[in-house]
Amino acid sequence: MGGASLADRVIAGDRRAIARALSVVERGDEPARALVGALFPRTGRAHLVGLTGAGGVGKSTLIAALIAEWRRRDRTVGVVAVDPTSALTGGALLGDRVRMEEHHADRGVWVRSLATRGAAGGLAGATLDAARVLDAAGFEIVVVETIGVGQDELEVARAVETVVLVEAPNLGDDVQALKAGLLEIADLIVVGKADLPGTDRALATLRAMLHLAPGQPPPLLKASAATGQGVAALADAIDAHLAWLSADGRREQRARARARAELERLLRDELVRVALTRLGAPNLDQASALVASRQQDPYLVARDLIQRVLHRPEPRT
Amino acid sequence: MGGASLADRVIAGDRRAIARALSVVERGDEPARALVGALFPRTGRAHLVGLTGAGGVGKSTLIAALIAEWRRRDRTVGVVAVDPTSALTGGALLGDRVRMEEHHADRGVWVRSLATRGAAGGLAGATLDAARVLDAAGFEIVVVETIGVGQDELEVARAVETVVLVEAPNLGDDVQALKAGLLEIADLIVVGKADLPGTDRALATLRAMLHLAPGQPPPLLKASAATGQGVAALADAIDAHLAWLSADGRREQRARARARAELERLLRDELVRVALTRLGAPNLDQASALVASRQQDPYLVARDLIQRVLHRPEPRT
Repeated sequence: MGGASLADRVIAGDRRAIARALSVVERGDEPARALVGALFPRTGRAHLVGLTGAGGVGKSTLIAALIAEWRRRDRTVGVVAVDPTSALTGGALLGDRVRMEEHHADRGVWVRSLATRGAAGGLAGATLDAARVLDAAGFEIVVVETIGVGQDELEVARAVETVVLVEAPNLGDDVQALKAGLLEIADLIVVGKADLPGTDRALATLRAMLHLAPGQPPPLLKASAATGQGVAALADAIDAHLAWLSADGRREQRARARARAELERLLRDELVRVALTRLGAPNLDQASALVASRQQDPYLVARDLIQRVLHRPEPRT
Repeated sequence: MGGASLADRVIAGDRRAIARALSVVERGDEPARALVGALFPRTGRAHLVGLTGAGGVGKSTLIAALIAEWRRRDRTVGVVAVDPTSALTGGALLGDRVRMEEHHADRGVWVRSLATRGAAGGLAGATLDAARVLDAAGFEIVVVETIGVGQDELEVARAVETVVLVEAPNLGDDVQALKAGLLEIADLIVVGKADLPGTDRALATLRAMLHLAPGQPPPLLKASAATGQGVAALADAIDAHLAWLSADGRREQRARARARAELERLLRDELVRVALTRLGAPNLDQASALVASRQQDPYLVARDLIQRVLHRPEPRT
């Protein structure tokens, strides 16, 4: 069966087709790309929201509370959760997942975990494509939940429209510092678990950090999934950010920036694949041996390899 | 003045030249590459040790304690610390840095912080090249200290010979899970701050996680920079790993794998640079607009761009 008919069924909201399509795009291969191509004209209607932050800050429980709030407002919600699964640690976050899955009986909600196994580009691509499946299937809000502070995470966070950074009251200064890259791209910051002590101190620390940065600081909120406090205000703030985006062509401008970042990532991954194919394993092994034995430095060897890949001298710039 | 004469002075151990060379390689530009090329034949004598782990686990104080231990053993030590400096968080780790710098009066020690600003490839390249400067300058042990759990960090960690993963007694399960990628490449694991409560529980948790993984688990140690407990044993374990590496051609085999990873990174970065130059900003803007307006899907657009970069159809594979 072709990508097109699966795409049609996804667009019609067929839940078995959605499940199937999510499995297809996770593989990131040629059929995945064809399916995304078929779905692509029907994407762009959902509000893409990223919830990001370190492990243990309570992102999953906060998302569960937001889902309940959005459902009360008759909004449909899809969630793509990027799960740091490893042979060593499989299921560490299962408790939170299960809490989100209580919404599974509700046809206005879809929750999907993706494995983080595979290449960096693979993670960002699979996440974005899974969000596209849910967007094309008609979910009005699509949430991407990411964990961590690496380059991958920044790539995923930059692929959404509204970045919500979740902090916990009890995080130390060091951990805060690590998330600086995320702090800088956050559209909203929320201290979760706001029922715990330390919330006001965390808010004050964040406020101080944000005032050191240039430009208008993002809104700073607190919310507790345990008590429900602040969850409706967070949902309002997410809506308000979309309204702000929608004015003055900002949403289109950001869409172009996101498209450009995605094209650069696809170019990078594909060029590397082509390069490794053209060079072949024996040439790469030989080149690696030259460097390892210190007969030639890596920059010189890389330059030679590049010339071989491009099959002609690069124009002087 | 040319790279060669600076290289000669670095190799002779001239401290002003070393400082200058470290600044040059941090820029990662053409003079940096030329300098690394000139130093390259004199590298490979140092034992490259990575100390990695999350923020706040006490890596810097542990390195300071290791430096003192190595100096007692008459070994010279260079340190490259990758500092997550941000306009928002500058100096968050300054206390630890200062503690390391007490060794600065000692000519057998060199400590250098690198900024993490810039591209992912930039960080790994600058770190590795700074380690090469210290290696060429004759430091017997070169330590690379990295923070965090992202793709960058894995890249840096994979560029050393002995990966020491530092954990703290008080880290939760979630944070452990996030570091799974590092756990899998660790040659040694040490619970630092072992004077604090929770050390034995952390050791037990780590032991359990390691036994779930295939293969021989890495040695598991505990150390306290505060009391000095375990620091000599850690230095011994690092030496023992080098001895193990040096047998049966393992060190050469790993050097080839590291060289190959570096060549792939250099290929990737350079191909992207060539591609963006060949395509030009107007073409990229136009392509991004096509995707943003959903006239063409990103995979199709990326394929067209690739063909334009390569100037001819790619052979069917």
